[in-house]
Amino acid sequence: MNAEQLARILGPWSREGVIYEELAAAIRYVITDGRLQPDTRIPAERALAKYLGVSRNSVAAAYGMLRTEGYLHSRRGAGSYVSLPPRADTPRGITWAPDAAPAEIDFAMACLPAPEPLLTQTMVETAPELARHTDQPGYDLTGIPSLRKAIADRYTRGGLPTLPEEIMVTGGAQQAWTLLLRLLVSKGDRVLMESPVHPTVHNAIRHAGGRPVAVSVGVDGWDVDMIRTTLHRARPVLGYLMPDFHNPTGQVMPAQARRAIAVAAREAGTRLVVEDTVSELSAEPGRLPLPLTAHGNPSRIITVGSMSKVCWGGLRVGWIRTTAALIDRLARVRESLDAGNAIVQQYIAARVFESYDDLVVTRRRVLTEQRRTLINALRDRLPGWSFAEPTGGLVLWADIGRPESTRLSRAAAAHGVRIPAGPRFGIGGTLENYLRIPYVHPPETLIEGVRRLALADNDRSKPSRLDLHTV
Amino acid sequence: MNAEQLARILGPWSREGVIYEELAAAIRYVITDGRLQPDTRIPAERALAKYLGVSRNSVAAAYGMLRTEGYLHSRRGAGSYVSLPPRADTPRGITWAPDAAPAEIDFAMACLPAPEPLLTQTMVETAPELARHTDQPGYDLTGIPSLRKAIADRYTRGGLPTLPEEIMVTGGAQQAWTLLLRLLVSKGDRVLMESPVHPTVHNAIRHAGGRPVAVSVGVDGWDVDMIRTTLHRARPVLGYLMPDFHNPTGQVMPAQARRAIAVAAREAGTRLVVEDTVSELSAEPGRLPLPLTAHGNPSRIITVGSMSKVCWGGLRVGWIRTTAALIDRLARVRESLDAGNAIVQQYIAARVFESYDDLVVTRRRVLTEQRRTLINALRDRLPGWSFAEPTGGLVLWADIGRPESTRLSRAAAAHGVRIPAGPRFGIGGTLENYLRIPYVHPPETLIEGVRRLALADNDRSKPSRLDLHTV
Repeated sequence: MNAEQLARILGPWSREGVIYEELAAAIRYVITDGRLQPDTRIPAERALAKYLGVSRNSVAAAYGMLRTEGYLHSRRGAGSYVSLPPRADTPRGITWAPDAAPAEIDFAMACLPAPEPLLTQTMVETAPELARHTDQPGYDLTGIPSLRKAIADRYTRGGLPTLPEEIMVTGGAQQAWTLLLRLLVSKGDRVLMESPVHPTVHNAIRHAGGRPVAVSVGVDGWDVDMIRTTLHRARPVLGYLMPDFHNPTGQVMPAQARRAIAVAAREAGTRLVVEDTVSELSAEPGRLPLPLTAHGNPSRIITVGSMSKVCWGGLRVGWIRTTAALIDRLARVRESLDAGNAIVQQYIAARVFESYDDLVVTRRRVLTEQRRTLINALRDRLPGWSFAEPTGGLVLWADIGRPESTRLSRAAAAHGVRIPAGPRFGIGGTLENYLRIPYVHPPETLIEGVRRLALADNDRSKPSRLDLHTV
Repeated sequence: MNAEQLARILGPWSREGVIYEELAAAIRYVITDGRLQPDTRIPAERALAKYLGVSRNSVAAAYGMLRTEGYLHSRRGAGSYVSLPPRADTPRGITWAPDAAPAEIDFAMACLPAPEPLLTQTMVETAPELARHTDQPGYDLTGIPSLRKAIADRYTRGGLPTLPEEIMVTGGAQQAWTLLLRLLVSKGDRVLMESPVHPTVHNAIRHAGGRPVAVSVGVDGWDVDMIRTTLHRARPVLGYLMPDFHNPTGQVMPAQARRAIAVAAREAGTRLVVEDTVSELSAEPGRLPLPLTAHGNPSRIITVGSMSKVCWGGLRVGWIRTTAALIDRLARVRESLDAGNAIVQQYIAARVFESYDDLVVTRRRVLTEQRRTLINALRDRLPGWSFAEPTGGLVLWADIGRPESTRLSRAAAAHGVRIPAGPRFGIGGTLENYLRIPYVHPPETLIEGVRRLALADNDRSKPSRLDLHTV
């Protein structure tokens, strides 16, 4: 990584206090935030000092401080690398610490609590059924038949005829994507993705050795002409799209764009992977356009879904919808990835599908109320922010009016709100104008969270030399 | 793949019937067996015909037959590639089909049925505990505290002092290996492994872009001098070893070898990963040498374990024992692999650990009886086979006296026994003298299975032109 790249990722950082402390704080933040990955080589002191227009001593002192804290380490004659100190704060939400019950409000995780008592009651009711099958070895690469059938039937009733053997159960949608990348992408292959994009979608492409090719989802949604041109020129082997309540923008891809992209992908020889994890969470059920998946055959337009957004992330039940032939190939690859699906929660999941219609209705109702609360709170407390009202999904994508999302995120932490900066969803430091706000909490928490964001925004508005350094 | 490589993988194949049918059968077998992976390019007809000493027409007819069946497909001007037909028989055992109840005896899966009623009773008892925590988002990259503590405490009582934060829960030992490879291995890095080795260990290295460097585990166990030389010359970044009841040979690494390998790895800068999934399943508890892990610090000698062999594979609960610092880095990488652990079975697993001592005792008793039954049956029915009596674990590694394991495996299938040929545990067609036999079934099944193996062995003994083609 060179100085310019690091500066872009750092975004605007305050130079009000002691320069080296401020610089260290800015670097520490993007490390804990996940934007600067462990084992990244950071630029030499001299180069960074020159680029930032600060003294080399300041950079040396900042690096030294981070080295002492464990955020950097040196390799013999090979420069400094990002690391994580042994007890670095792993973001809450991805570390299971239910008893901690902190006063912090979590605006980072876009997921709902489990439906109760449905989930644990189902767990109890399922035990006798499972007990009839625990004499088996317990290895399963594609899913138990009852769950594959439940998922296939749900697609069929939703208008996409699907057989159980066209469904492969996975440990969530992210694992489904990992598996598809492992089978279909070789080192150096281009992979199309949206920008903004959830960082795990992007990181999985890089880990698979693929070269991400980003197409932008802006305020006007997907730019079909640009996507068509990108497909024809770059000819990616694979593309990842989220047409229904895109994460993080909340946008819905229009029917015509779906058709056009499906055609262009077919012409370019690009297989598409369509994530539909929140498609059911529509504020206006029945108003979504035909799924993108309907515009091609399931070997060329693959769907990945999960129960994590409608039911609970703690189940880790997701799936791939494609042809039986491709599932056979995926199963082979999967054997050496994780040896397959756990059995226990598959039986639970299959039974949860028996009352999935009711669950979806409840979720929609709750989310509609929470979305309304969030929108009203934002209009009330942060009238300068603008956003399109989402018509489904779990998140709102706010334009905060100035390219200071990273700074706002830092200020929010001081007020007890954990929220990732916009660039977490971008590539190399873009999206400083945006913030993703999930509405997965009860109204009172949302109102308090927005109140704290407004305080943080107010801190941010204090004049500082900072504004000179925006990118 | 060239003709010589394919011939080596095919091993000896019968030329008694119609040549092209026999050749097609031999190729089909190594495809369904997993030794010839989908998307492998197979040699041109002319080259293979020349190498095998058969007519080009025979090869063309065999390829044509396989193409019709879906085992091969052509790419424009780029030759023929292995594929799997849509409804190819996925090996039983890795596809969850508990209601099929076939007459086939499964000598492929080395795993026990779940302990019942313990498992499903625990599931019922755990529901209220889980219900207190399902208001959480459900995302967890490192494991719930009670399970990390239960695993750490078990290591501590076993003589390896371990803190909960030095344990990362994973979806099984295979996933633990995938995760370690993803973090620690870059494209082209050398990775040490044993040969024979479980194929998923080997495949995971290849999928991670690593270059496997094999060290042999022969009848006399590990060749420490050779391993030392290999470590010093190849300087692999990572090595995978299974010192306790090595899979598939069942061997136990002597204490002195453990010390010597730990020292050599340290000198070579090689991190070691030690699998201890069956260490507790010893016929002579307390007689195992000190764990290899004890000879280094947990950042350089990492342990991967799981509940799959002692408890049940269907739980998919495994772990990594290393430093808290490395676990933090693994957690970051894991976010884009699968978004983490399911919560449900972790609570079950934590509770199962409360009676783990009893469970281990029961498993040892059952396995001792089954092992004795298998040994007696083999001595009785197949006196020409030789083997070391395993002192623990789940499998016996038999020398079948001639390099015809692939042919025997095919013959066994005709007698209703599913057992992988020895080369499944080798690299590129070696180990034709061996067969791995798990003793995870009740005595009557083991006796019947060996009876059928003897019938298959008898078929195999019929004279044929085959013997000319052994490798």
